[in-house]
Amino acid sequence: MTTKEKILDAAQDLIQTRSFHGFSFQDLADRVGIRKPSLYHHFDSKDAIAVAVLERAADWVRTQSAKVEGKDPAARLERYFDMFRHIHGKAERMCPGGSFASVFDGISSSVQSTLHRFTKLHLDLLESIVREGAERGQFHIKDQRPRDVAMQVFAGVQGALLIGRLTGDTHAIDAVSDEFRSYLGYVPTK
Amino acid sequence: MTTKEKILDAAQDLIQTRSFHGFSFQDLADRVGIRKPSLYHHFDSKDAIAVAVLERAADWVRTQSAKVEGKDPAARLERYFDMFRHIHGKAERMCPGGSFASVFDGISSSVQSTLHRFTKLHLDLLESIVREGAERGQFHIKDQRPRDVAMQVFAGVQGALLIGRLTGDTHAIDAVSDEFRSYLGYVPTK
Repeated sequence: MTTKEKILDAAQDLIQTRSFHGFSFQDLADRVGIRKPSLYHHFDSKDAIAVAVLERAADWVRTQSAKVEGKDPAARLERYFDMFRHIHGKAERMCPGGSFASVFDGISSSVQSTLHRFTKLHLDLLESIVREGAERGQFHIKDQRPRDVAMQVFAGVQGALLIGRLTGDTHAIDAVSDEFRSYLGYVPTK
Repeated sequence: MTTKEKILDAAQDLIQTRSFHGFSFQDLADRVGIRKPSLYHHFDSKDAIAVAVLERAADWVRTQSAKVEGKDPAARLERYFDMFRHIHGKAERMCPGGSFASVFDGISSSVQSTLHRFTKLHLDLLESIVREGAERGQFHIKDQRPRDVAMQVFAGVQGALLIGRLTGDTHAIDAVSDEFRSYLGYVPTK
């Protein structure tokens, strides 16, 4: 693993557990085990680190989704829930993007724009799954707009991770997945 | 309004928009228009401010719920959604409790315990609404446990506020309320 990757791993973990405002450049250098000037050699600002963490997280979402491309919508949605279970661990971590909601007024416009793109990626992905599921009759969404259902699912998983952090209980993400299976009317095939 | 109330209002707004780690004692004193020693006169630590903000927010939830006590479960759930619309404003603010999820590993155990109580208050309130709604046949929850449905609703509203912050779009909370009306099978009476 390169030093740059080690920095991004450590920064992402700090963002997911303490928020972007919860650590300094020095904290990050200490955690990676390098000196502050070395950190500046890779990233000239904390904002640059935030953008790099978010872009890498977006790439991960794209890679994970690509693995189930061509599978049926229910299987793709189940994979989406699994992604959030993975991110969450034992109620240890927020989504690296969702974590920024709390600090939103205190971050630069470059990070805010990256978050807009990050959120749009999730909503577009979910919307395409929901639309296909409805067209194929696998999901029952009545007169709902696929975009709204996408927003509901995204709110559910982000909220589940938020509750997991506040309670230390990993059960919320399972409860929310169950809700959407029942709401959309499908039985997951594993 | 007393100085103490002004401090709590300013601190709550900062927590909801920039997170507990996004402001200093000096920022808070500046916003209230007092000097730092005066702030220390009222609160001897930032933790004490966090606890006071959260306890006041919990009291507000109890007061709002008490106003609809005795009404039917659907009306009480609608009031619950309205509370979150009020807290959110024009996608401007997180829930003061939910905002702490992102910073959880970086706060003291006294604040963490207060957050456990805050979350339990919400889940207990929602569970009692869901249980009564199911018993009276107003909600259709099949074989779901009322506690799980409470968790799903809490995740939905917290996630909606999180998405609102990331996108600047207030629509998520309406989409999520609609979802639960459909999921629980009731039509709100306004």
